[in-house]
Formats: sequence, C-alpha cells, structure tokens
Amino acid sequence: MTSFPEVRIAILGASGYSGADLVRLLALHPAARIVALTGERQAGKSMGEVFPHLGGLDLPVLTKIDDVEWSQVDVAFCALPHGTTQAVVKAIPSNVKIVDISADFRLTDAASYAEWYGHEHQATALQAEAVYGLTEHKRAAIRNARLIANPGCYPTSAQLPLVPLLRAGLIDPDEIIIDAKSGVTGAGREAKQDSLYSEVSEGVHAYGVARHRHAPEIEQELGIAAGRDLNIVFTPHLMPMSRGILSTIYVKLTAGHSATDLRRTLVETYADEPFVRVTPEGAGPSTRHVRGSNMALIGVFADRVPGRAILVSVIDNLVKGASGQAIQNMNVMLQIPETTGLSQIAMFP
Amino acid sequence: MTSFPEVRIAILGASGYSGADLVRLLALHPAARIVALTGERQAGKSMGEVFPHLGGLDLPVLTKIDDVEWSQVDVAFCALPHGTTQAVVKAIPSNVKIVDISADFRLTDAASYAEWYGHEHQATALQAEAVYGLTEHKRAAIRNARLIANPGCYPTSAQLPLVPLLRAGLIDPDEIIIDAKSGVTGAGREAKQDSLYSEVSEGVHAYGVARHRHAPEIEQELGIAAGRDLNIVFTPHLMPMSRGILSTIYVKLTAGHSATDLRRTLVETYADEPFVRVTPEGAGPSTRHVRGSNMALIGVFADRVPGRAILVSVIDNLVKGASGQAIQNMNVMLQIPETTGLSQIAMFP
Amino acid sequence: MTSFPEVRIAILGASGYSGADLVRLLALHPAARIVALTGERQAGKSMGEVFPHLGGLDLPVLTKIDDVEWSQVDVAFCALPHGTTQAVVKAIPSNVKIVDISADFRLTDAASYAEWYGHEHQATALQAEAVYGLTEHKRAAIRNARLIANPGCYPTSAQLPLVPLLRAGLIDPDEIIIDAKSGVTGAGREAKQDSLYSEVSEGVHAYGVARHRHAPEIEQELGIAAGRDLNIVFTPHLMPMSRGILSTIYVKLTAGHSATDLRRTLVETYADEPFVRVTPEGAGPSTRHVRGSNMALIGVFADRVPGRAILVSVIDNLVKGASGQAIQNMNVMLQIPETTGLSQIAMFP
Amino acid sequence: MTSFPEVRIAILGASGYSGADLVRLLALHPAARIVALTGERQAGKSMGEVFPHLGGLDLPVLTKIDDVEWSQVDVAFCALPHGTTQAVVKAIPSNVKIVDISADFRLTDAASYAEWYGHEHQATALQAEAVYGLTEHKRAAIRNARLIANPGCYPTSAQLPLVPLLRAGLIDPDEIIIDAKSGVTGAGREAKQDSLYSEVSEGVHAYGVARHRHAPEIEQELGIAAGRDLNIVFTPHLMPMSRGILSTIYVKLTAGHSATDLRRTLVETYADEPFVRVTPEGAGPSTRHVRGSNMALIGVFADRVPGRAILVSVIDNLVKGASGQAIQNMNVMLQIPETTGLSQIAMFP
Repeated sequence: MTSFPEVRIAILGASGYSGADLVRLLALHPAARIVALTGERQAGKSMGEVFPHLGGLDLPVLTKIDDVEWSQVDVAFCALPHGTTQAVVKAIPSNVKIVDISADFRLTDAASYAEWYGHEHQATALQAEAVYGLTEHKRAAIRNARLIANPGCYPTSAQLPLVPLLRAGLIDPDEIIIDAKSGVTGAGREAKQDSLYSEVSEGVHAYGVARHRHAPEIEQELGIAAGRDLNIVFTPHLMPMSRGILSTIYVKLTAGHSATDLRRTLVETYADEPFVRVTPEGAGPSTRHVRGSNMALIGVFADRVPGRAILVSVIDNLVKGASGQAIQNMNVMLQIPETTGLSQIAMFP
Repeated sequence: MTSFPEVRIAILGASGYSGADLVRLLALHPAARIVALTGERQAGKSMGEVFPHLGGLDLPVLTKIDDVEWSQVDVAFCALPHGTTQAVVKAIPSNVKIVDISADFRLTDAASYAEWYGHEHQATALQAEAVYGLTEHKRAAIRNARLIANPGCYPTSAQLPLVPLLRAGLIDPDEIIIDAKSGVTGAGREAKQDSLYSEVSEGVHAYGVARHRHAPEIEQELGIAAGRDLNIVFTPHLMPMSRGILSTIYVKLTAGHSATDLRRTLVETYADEPFVRVTPEGAGPSTRHVRGSNMALIGVFADRVPGRAILVSVIDNLVKGASGQAIQNMNVMLQIPETTGLSQIAMFP
Repeated sequence: MTSFPEVRIAILGASGYSGADLVRLLALHPAARIVALTGERQAGKSMGEVFPHLGGLDLPVLTKIDDVEWSQVDVAFCALPHGTTQAVVKAIPSNVKIVDISADFRLTDAASYAEWYGHEHQATALQAEAVYGLTEHKRAAIRNARLIANPGCYPTSAQLPLVPLLRAGLIDPDEIIIDAKSGVTGAGREAKQDSLYSEVSEGVHAYGVARHRHAPEIEQELGIAAGRDLNIVFTPHLMPMSRGILSTIYVKLTAGHSATDLRRTLVETYADEPFVRVTPEGAGPSTRHVRGSNMALIGVFADRVPGRAILVSVIDNLVKGASGQAIQNMNVMLQIPETTGLSQIAMFP
Repeated sequence: MTSFPEVRIAILGASGYSGADLVRLLALHPAARIVALTGERQAGKSMGEVFPHLGGLDLPVLTKIDDVEWSQVDVAFCALPHGTTQAVVKAIPSNVKIVDISADFRLTDAASYAEWYGHEHQATALQAEAVYGLTEHKRAAIRNARLIANPGCYPTSAQLPLVPLLRAGLIDPDEIIIDAKSGVTGAGREAKQDSLYSEVSEGVHAYGVARHRHAPEIEQELGIAAGRDLNIVFTPHLMPMSRGILSTIYVKLTAGHSATDLRRTLVETYADEPFVRVTPEGAGPSTRHVRGSNMALIGVFADRVPGRAILVSVIDNLVKGASGQAIQNMNVMLQIPETTGLSQIAMFP
C-alpha cells in the first residue's frame, strides 16, 4: 500500500493525550510502524487498556523506557512530562532521530530555561543542537536535524500569524497582545482537581496571568522574526472544551500599512502550505473547524480603532500543537511527503 | 494511489450533519470522487461556506437536486429529511445506485409506514425493492441491491447486539428493554429551540417515550431475527453531547443459558468483522471510544438478578449510525473492500 | 428577620461538593448559623480559598474535626467519605443531632454492610439507631431521631416514584429495572482520572454494572415498601453534566392496573408535598428543571407494550440527593417549617 | 414575612431567558408580586409550559402585551427584543416605573443609535429621559428615574473595573483592549442555527469582530468616566457555556502608576458594595464563581510588560448583566434595600 521505506517508531510517554493522538495519526501513516510504546506507570498494560478507543489496533504492549530496544527504532517521539525528557534523550543512541513534544529543548538560552523551569538544563549540548520545529518556517533546518524541539501549542498558534508580519515589518513588535483560549487536554491526563469536569465545564477563567512558560518561547521566536528582542502580553484561558486553541491577537500597524496588507502577506506566505489557511474576509475561524486535523486557520480583521488590526488563529492543540506537527516534522526529516499520515479532515461537530 | 475504478458520487442533502460527515469520510476514500452536492436552500454556496471545516477541500458548489447531471453519477447518497426522499428517488435514473440515509425505505410494510409517518408511502414499488442495509447481517442482499435503506442510528445500536442473540434463541423476545442515549446531532442541523445549546447542555431528559419512530424499525428487524413478531420497550434520551449513541439493553435469558453464552455468541459472530468488537469482560464501552469512527462496541454483563443480562452497545450516530455505514454499504454494492475509506480511528478526547 | 431559635451548625467534610452546597443553602436559612467547618487536608484555609464562589460569605475558617468545639454545636452535617463517618460520629456528644450524608448508616443489616463495603461496621449500635431519612416517607421517625442516614442520590430518585407504587401493590416487585444517569459531582471533588473533563465531556458510559453499592440500599427500602424482599436491576451511567440524576424506571403493572393508576397514586401521594411534583401527562422531566433546587419531578408514561409503564424521575444529586434533603431532615428534626432555607428555584439554563 | 409595601410587577417578554431569570429571582423577593407576564407567541400558555423549571410557582398565565391591565402594575420589566421596546414603552402609563433590559434606551445619542441599530429611534423623548442603570455608579439618578436603561452584559463587565480607573486617571483612555467571552444565553432563546448545541459545544470563536453593538455603549460610558471621547478595542467570543461573561482587559498605566494603584482604587471604590468584589492578589475570578448570582468579581494583575496591567472581570450575563441588575435598579428606584431578592449565592458546580 506504500512505497516508502518503513519507519520504526517508538513513542515515549504513550499514556498521555499526545501519545494517544500520535498513535491515532500514525496508525494511518503508510510508512510508520510503531514498535515501542512506553509508560512508566502503565508498563505491562496494553494500549487498549489505557485508551480503549485504540483497543482495536495491533500495537506493542506498554513498557518502561529502559526496556526499549533502540536498535529496532528509527524515530522516537518524546511525549514525556516537561523536565524529564532531557535526561532520557541523552541516553538514546545517536542514530535515532527524535521529535520532542515536551518543552525541554525549546528555549535556546540556558539561563532563560533555568529561570522559567526552575532548574539548570541537564543536556545543554543537546539544547544547543535542537532545532525548533515550527515546520512552515524552519524546513531547511528540520531536514538536517537529529533532534526537533516541537513547538508548544500556544506558541504555534501565535507564531503562524505573527512571524510573517514581523518579518515584513507590518506590525509594531512592542504592541502585541495575545489573548489565548485553550482546551483542557493542554493540562494533560494527570488527575488534578483543576481539570475535573465539574471544575471546568460551563465556565471560563484566565490562568497563569503574566507568568505562563509559553511567553518566553513565543518571545524567543517572534524576536528572531522581528530581528530584535521584544516582549509580548500573553494571557491564557481555560475553556470548557477538550481540544483546540484560539488566539486572539491585537496588533498595531506600522506606518503606512493596513489590515489588507496583513491579509495579503499571510495569504501569500501560506499559499502553498497544506496545513495553514487564511479564512475569507469577514469569516473568523473556530476551533471546531480544525478539531482532530493538522490545520491552522487564520482570520484577519481591520479594527474600528485606526491603526489597529485583530488576528484570530486556531489549531487543535493536540495535533498542529503537538502530535500532528511532530509527525509533520518527522516527515520532513525523513524526506517523506510532508502531508503523509496527516490527511485527517477536521471532525465537526 | 488506488487501483479501484473511480466512483462518481452525488450527495443529496449535503448541508446537514450526515452530509458533512459523508464528505469528511469520502474525502479519504481512494475510489470516491464527489461530483455533486445538493442543498435546496444553500444552492449556489460553496461547501466551505456551509461547513467551514470542509473549506480546504476541492468540492463542487452546492446545487438544487434538479440541477444534478445524473449521467455523471454512479452512486447517490440521500441525506434528505424523512418523507422527502421517496419522491426524489423515484426520479433518479435506474443505473444510479442509491444509499438512502433517511427513514423512507426502512419499513417494509406500507401500513406500518403510514401509521408511523402519517402519510401513505409515495414509492411503494421502491419500498418493496429496497434492501435494509445493516451491513454485517445483510451482505448478500446488499451486494445485489440498487437501493439501500440505511438503518437508523438507534436501530443499528440495538440490532448489532440483539440480532445474533435472538437468532441463537438465547434471550426472550418478549422481554427486551432498550434504554438509549443519543447525542444532539441526531436531531439534525435545523434551527430548533429544543436543540439550542442552553436547552441541552448540563442535563438529560427522555423524549418520545413510548412513541419514537425507531421502535417499529427495530421491531421489524428483531422480529425477523427471532422468527416471529415481537414488541420492545424503547426509550430514547437526549444527551449533552454532539455525537454518539449508547444503548443499555436489558434482556432475560432463555432457560439453560447464561451471560457467558451471550458473550461467546457475540464474540463468534463478530470475530472477523472489522467494525464490530466485543469489549473485554468487565469493561464497558463508552461513546467516546467510537467518536468519528465506524466502529460499534458491545459490552456484555451478567446481572445480579438471576436469569438476566445487560448489554451495552455504542456507535457514533453519524458514522456507523448514518454516513459510515452508508459508505460501507456502497463498498459492498460495488465490491470494493469493505473497509475502504473507513479506517478513521476514533478521536479521543 | 426570623423568629426561629438559632441553630448552631457544624459541617464535617466541608471541602467537598456536598459541603459547599450545604453552605450555599444554609447561608439563606434564617435559623442556621454555621459555627464550624472541617476539612482535614484544608484545615487553616478559608472557605473562599477552597470554594471561591463562597468567598463573599462570613464563615469560620476550616479546621480539623478534632478541633470542633462540640459544646457550641447543635447540629452536625457529616459529608465525609464513606467508611470514615462511623468512627467520627461515635465521638460526637450525644446532644448533638447528626445528619450523615455518607453511606455509613444507610444499610440496617450489618452483614449486608460488610459485604458491600468490604469491612465490618465500627458503630453497630448507632447503625441500629439511625433513621433512614427519605423525608417524605419517614417523617414520624425523623422527628424523633438523633442520627439521620441521609439517603443516597440514586436511591432517592428511585424511591420517590417506586415506594408509593409498591405500597399500593400496583407494580410487580420482581420486575423493576432502573436505568440511572448521573452528573459527575456524584463522584466527588477528589482528583481522579475518570472524572477529568476530557474523560467525561461529550460522551456517556455505564459503570459499576450489576455491582453498584446503591443497589442494596434501594432494595432494602423498596423491600420495606413491598412488604417482602426483592431484587432490582440497576445500571448507573456517567453523564457529561455536573449536577442531576435522571432515573428511567421500567415496571410491569399488576393485574387490573394501568399507567393511569400509577399516575393517580403518585399525584395523590405527593399532592401536599412541597418538594415532589408529578409532571403533566405527556411531559417528561429534565434534570435541568431541578438544578440547584430541592425539587423532585416524576413523569409517568404508559408503554406501548401492554402491561408496562415507564417512570422518569429527576433530582439534583447534590440537593434533594444530598445537602438539600439533609437540611429538610434537620428542619423536621428541629420542628422548623420543612421548606425553610430550601426555597431556591431551579436555575435554568 | 416582609414589611415592604407590595410591588406589583409586569414582565414583558417573559418567554426569554432574561424573563425566566427575572421570575426565578423575583419569586424570592419579599416585596414583589408578579401580576402580568407577556409573550406574544406564547400567549395563553402557563409559564410552566414555557419554562418547566418554573412550573411549581403560582404565576399568571402568559398574555399579549395589549392585554396587560396597567392600572394593576407598579413596575414593568421589559425583556423584549432590541428595537421593539421603544414603541411598547411609549404606550405604558406614566405612573408605571420601567426597567428596560433591551438596548433601546442605552445610547443617549440619537445619531449613534441610528447608525448602530439601522433605524431612527421611535421614542427620542424617552431616550433623553432614560437613566443608564449601572447601579453602583448611577444611584442618585436611578433613585429619581422613571425609565431605566439597564446596561448590556458586556458593558457591565467592562465598566465595573474601568470606570473607577478612568475617573482616577490611572489608565490611558486610548489603549483599552477588551477581550470578552460570553455564554450562549446572550444570544437569547430564539431558534438559530448558530446557537445549536452542536455548533457551540467543544469549541470557541470570535464573532462580530470590530462591529459589535456593545462597543458604542461601552465607549459612551467610559467616555463619561474619562471626561472625553475614546475608542476601545472590543472582541466578543462565544463560549461553550450557558451563563457568564469574562472580560480580559488590557490597559496601559499612566505615568507614575502601578497595578497596585489599580487594585487599591478598585478595592476602595467597591469596599461597601454588596455585589462587587476584588479577588485576592494572585487569584483570578472564574465565571463559575458568580453563576446564578448578582455578583461581579474583578481580578487585577501587573503584567510582565512594564507599564501594563491586566484586569479580569466576571459576571453572570443573565443576572448582574440583565435580570439581577434590573431588580437591583428597581430596589433603588423604590427605595427598598438594594440587596432585597438578590441574596442568591453563586451555584458551583
């Protein structure tokens, strides 16, 4: 059914939501064969016991990381908790390519990492080597990388609209406000009171106001696009929904530019991209329009206030914001056509 | 990418949820090419305007049914409102194969149709010809059919566990109680106060108690399986969820039989079926485990009350309960491998 | 503002949902003054820290149970985890009246308790003394009780329709099937994976099939009403909603009786009850119609199958199924008018 | 039970969500007696048929507006669709006090009204007379008013934090960005596809970007507070929840001021207010904390970006954003203690 060489895949941390979504997507990837699934506390169980929706698939039993036979693995996806990946990755043989979904290798600056994550980085050499994997904007580097730092979900939704506009000098780098709304899967599958159904349903609140760890990641990458350091205002909100991120982004236009220029730049930038689309004028995107798919949608609106525009960006946090982009990055690394295994249409309703 | 001959497809009533899910699934079907989409009130619009999540696909513009060029069509899916299909189908050229998702051709008895739908059937010849398309149990007839009456969502969830048990004489045909729970998409996309978010969220209620139109459909088919007429108790409930049906079915065992016999019979019946699975002992299915997929899961439990068992059956009402089973039936009719285009893994969460 | 003598109240286990709802309701009770709130792990915190929606009230700080000054307490509500109450209650001075929301004193038979709860009861004398507090049917005993075993949420929703029908001999005691649907607060506020938003939203499943601890409680009380032992079929389902229980109850009529007789008996039984109402013919109740209130609604339907009827019963599991009925019982014990503090209208939507 | 003189109340437009919530709250108001309920299309029905959760109350049958006996009415609440109130209000006898929940009398400028609502105002004299009823900031005028323009839900949530800060000159009037998130009841109970459960659940989107009618209302009132005209950036979002509005407000501090100054000013302004509370430092409010109550909560946060702060404001859109504030205003007009009938504690979960 496929002419690709088989890719043998290990998923480390397969018992979380990102791990499950990697399996969901890779099961339809013609080149992928999952040879190892790990879950330290679930070792010995079948994937169907941990995630019954995957119960019909022919999958390896969950093991501990120490029991992975690395000689049988071509690519490892790391979906481990933040802070734990760096030690694990150091121990993986160097011929195994790695896409890390955690935050461990996203910040390039060791001091910044230490400040935001509360401990020194334990694999600074790898930190320096890792390629930040916002696929649409980093393809050349990804192609030659061994270790990909897969972007965070909030940062992906923020960068896709902002990077081209900053590069083109169309917006003021010092006046960017990102009001982001996320589904609950962003908090993982761990049992936490704050993620209980009755704590989340039928309401909304902001969290981590002015102190969310995705802010420095966004600033790092937008700074590269702008050609200089910048600060953003970033407020995440928890929404009563499982999947999806919507970022409403308030920007000021630089002199002589209009929202039409923003739209044109984004349309041109993403004209040939399979996974990014600018919505038609007047039509804003909804997270429902990308649920389960690797798509990102971007809406562009002129504001009533002169000199201002509003961008609305949506992704599925588990797909383009995690597992989907990770597979997209694997495809690029392995020079498999980039959309392979990612053709899922969004599921609505 | 495929060796199948191309199948040119028209979807009548594409502006509803079943129509949209047909598109979602057929977009990944290697043999299918959608050549016509109809929506009487939406004619002239693009599918992306009506369903933005489908906005990235290359699809024909919506037209009126009268504007379909039937010479270009091999298969028509009818996802029209109940009662309107029969007139439409009469006018379709006889070489076009038809899968009707509405209820128009499900009841074989004209008098029963008139009683439950409030008007005489307008295409009784076709009604007689139509094949009831519960794929797993009607393959021989489907293979030779021109017109398939695709089963209702509730009836599909009820028949999959019950038909084999009645055939095997393991349960009392006069003591079947089906307590069914459905997602809101079962009520369609029409604007109705009863389907508003604030009327549905965070609560549950029964509806159509003792008078739902799916009861005679279930009785017709279970009667065939039992070899005699029977009555069922059937109560549908509206759930705060978009997709999914769960049927909790209470049965009495016939003399000398146990829940273990029920389990064994269902496991054997469905051992080679790609879309029906019996869950492991002690593990009940959830609608979340089949969301977006064509799978049906069945749980079997011995009751504390001697001589009784409880069956729990789940499907996605829009997939195995409508669009997915319709494509499965098309595949059988056209002798395409039955799982083609239906490999979607359930999306959880 | 009130002519009642002040009642000094301690709430043990105030950091759970039932505790919070006791506070919500008692805050508007003209005779109640909350003098102690306990939460072993939250001791030292204000109630507003634990439940911000109560942050505006003037409430005592949370303490450990050992720090309650019992001389200042007239009534204690116990909203502690099952199994822990019995030891606590033994230590409470005998002049303090107690309403226990846990299951510890509901089963009157010590052997049955041991079988279903996995350990011997530690306060069998109190177990014998406790009065089962289904208010509408136990007023005389409640009035003279010191210790009330507040009924479980499922049992309350099942007994209100069934007790009068069994007493009147209108239904067959051996053919009762209760299909119950509960909101997630029934599982408490403890962090559990099964109660996470993403595990519960947008789906439904049965749990504890044929082995839920509320079954023996229901059987005990229905047996009293029927005048003999009986077994029920009982299947609970977890719903994507925070509050509410709906029980769909399938019954067989005894010879010579009809659904009209059931309706008449229930209407007459509850004609003067402030908190139980039979819905009009043809109109089924929804959990949304009682959300936040102490009301129970009962719908009665003749089935299509001769000799059968269907009852639909709804309550708010946290109010009539826990805190509200507890306050109702306190009012009866103290001979305060029974509706005092319970006048909250259901909140819809 | 009360020493207040009885107030005879008519609710015009009682078949919508605001009407129902007026009934829910007024049922517990010791001075209120509801003597008329209108609903043009529902005339002749009981309130219990239209809203079963109110079925247990003793209420007048719904009539047409023309059938209200105005001689029996002291106060009319108008919960009619926007644009229809002005004609109705003109016909009400002048001794009847009116609280209008629609938008008809909120804009004081006739030209602005015509621009945003698409037609000339039909009662400009009343428009000039109407008092804008943000209770906490307009008490003196409300006390002497006959006609109150009850503030919109978004404007209430925006003004409560912003009015004191603009008055005190602590924030830049030209740099206010309001990112607002609303529950679905804000769209009313009318059957609209956009409000269907399956269109709203499990997702989020912005709507009315840069063209929502609440923007001029907010600008009018903030302009008064600032002492000069201003423009705001305002983006509403539709949330998968029934009740609640959360406004995240981004502001720039004027020279020499800090977020601490904002907090102090808000705490002082609302120190004696029963319905407005500033949340403790570091703790943001959730819409869940005010659900069903008349409370507004305000969180204040210093931003990481120097010179910036973030305010988070929550209300229940149907209570403080509509029916609750309407009753609060009636109390002020009639010199009844302001909290009368509004003591409902928020219901969580």
